[in-house]
Amino acid sequence: MKVVVTGGAGFLGQRLISGMLERGELTDSNGVRRAISEVVAVDQVEAPAAPRVRSAVGDVSDSAFVADVVKGADSVFHLAAVVSGAAEADFDLGMRVNLDGTRGLLDALRREGRTPKVVFASSVAVFGGVLPDTVTDATTPAPQSSYGVQKLIGELLLGDCSRKGMIDGRAVRLPTIVVRPGKPNAAASSFASGIIREPLAGMEARCPVDPDTSMWLMSPSSAIANLLHAHELPAARWKGPRALSLPGISVSVREMLDALVRAGGEAARARVKMQPDPRIQAIVMGWPARFDTARADAMGFVRDADFETIVRDYVKEHGR
Amino acid sequence: MKVVVTGGAGFLGQRLISGMLERGELTDSNGVRRAISEVVAVDQVEAPAAPRVRSAVGDVSDSAFVADVVKGADSVFHLAAVVSGAAEADFDLGMRVNLDGTRGLLDALRREGRTPKVVFASSVAVFGGVLPDTVTDATTPAPQSSYGVQKLIGELLLGDCSRKGMIDGRAVRLPTIVVRPGKPNAAASSFASGIIREPLAGMEARCPVDPDTSMWLMSPSSAIANLLHAHELPAARWKGPRALSLPGISVSVREMLDALVRAGGEAARARVKMQPDPRIQAIVMGWPARFDTARADAMGFVRDADFETIVRDYVKEHGR
Repeated sequence: MKVVVTGGAGFLGQRLISGMLERGELTDSNGVRRAISEVVAVDQVEAPAAPRVRSAVGDVSDSAFVADVVKGADSVFHLAAVVSGAAEADFDLGMRVNLDGTRGLLDALRREGRTPKVVFASSVAVFGGVLPDTVTDATTPAPQSSYGVQKLIGELLLGDCSRKGMIDGRAVRLPTIVVRPGKPNAAASSFASGIIREPLAGMEARCPVDPDTSMWLMSPSSAIANLLHAHELPAARWKGPRALSLPGISVSVREMLDALVRAGGEAARARVKMQPDPRIQAIVMGWPARFDTARADAMGFVRDADFETIVRDYVKEHGR
Repeated sequence: MKVVVTGGAGFLGQRLISGMLERGELTDSNGVRRAISEVVAVDQVEAPAAPRVRSAVGDVSDSAFVADVVKGADSVFHLAAVVSGAAEADFDLGMRVNLDGTRGLLDALRREGRTPKVVFASSVAVFGGVLPDTVTDATTPAPQSSYGVQKLIGELLLGDCSRKGMIDGRAVRLPTIVVRPGKPNAAASSFASGIIREPLAGMEARCPVDPDTSMWLMSPSSAIANLLHAHELPAARWKGPRALSLPGISVSVREMLDALVRAGGEAARARVKMQPDPRIQAIVMGWPARFDTARADAMGFVRDADFETIVRDYVKEHGR
């Protein structure tokens, strides 16, 4: 079984690849469990060398490149994207990668004619505008960022190609993933990891939003479990919309900082500087912070216990 | 004031151009009423010659062509589309014209840097799947046809470009327009005009759907009035979503045939042959037939009185 992971050299992509190779097999579109023979990590940079993993370095918006990498693919996890802050700042870049890239990928898969499974990493950023206190499976996505619009268009294209039998698509709207290791990125949500990660490592971090701001969060390990679960569910369980919101937890920035104190003490907390950034605040405030994910719950997707556990697991894995 | 009408040689495009030239002036994006100096009718064929009307023959998915025709445009009415049945039968064609065409148009307008008004003819085909008895402004669009998906993506792009201040966009979801004069087209809804038009002209017509099928309808003259109204409303009235469902009337095919009897007698009715077509039935059944259009009503969009009046007006204008 050949699996393609776009964004495969990134943080989530790398963990996803490790996760699937640990399992060793996945269920193909005919419902047959098969050993993973090859994973192609598609990204702008080389993925770390590993058995059964091949790096394909290129641009996901380059249709010839994409057509080449998906040859013979049984499954695709499409994670590659220009993140929210960058897509807002550079409209053309976001459109090219997030829209054209997804469109080109679906086109290439369709021409392969194998009806592969496609798991698409969508985002809660598809929601915005005037929102109810709790977003449900019936809430109309009304994105207020270019990133959210591009993700929603990806969901729609994935749904239509699935309806036409070109692919077997499954789109999951990821909450903000925390705690990400490594460096800050251009995502408007990047600070949510930074205000835990940096202080625990003895470094200063800036918090650009009000402590009362609530966010909808998921740990990296739950994200990987849910991406794989989205893939493993039989197509019959995806009757109806091919996109759904994943179960996260609703946490205020204040609660996040409290968890930081418990993990790293007041000294860690003191390293977080409150530096309001109206641009970031506006984007993050536009994202819904509380969901009723009845459909995903019924389909067996998992939810983190609480934010303290997320931080504890981060410390266990990455140290301080 | 320069106005561009894509699909300008088509039935609605032609009526729209006549309608705006009769008025003589339109309100520009600064709220100033200005005389219409030129209308560019963009289409695959020449529009009939008329004062102040210039034909631009080309493909709306050709970005260089589109960039050229929109030079200096103050307003654009974007009607050009591959219709529902054709977009379903030829996926590539629909994607190219309905998605790439709209995207290219918005791109060209943005590069012009004039923030023109853009009225986009969307469709009730953005709705589908499991629907409530009455679709409201809160119902989530879930298109079940490639045409509907492409129209919804157009709405999303228009909304994002408006949010970014690149254009001043307004998308109106048109009901099925009846009675269209002329010949049948590849729209799945084409029969709805055909079962009135052909029998009144002494010709046979086929009805591919069950008489109990209900449809959401609007007359051509109401459609034109509403497209122009969408344009004339100040941007402040378009706060919130840049797309809305227009007021139509809910009519069953049986009621349509009853109206045919009243306009043309039993002889006309006898010319309609019931020939169920599961493909057409499935598409049309997937469209919602009843709406609560509170938002559009409050914004002053108009609704037809009833189907008999629509047929009477058709006969008045086009004869039998």
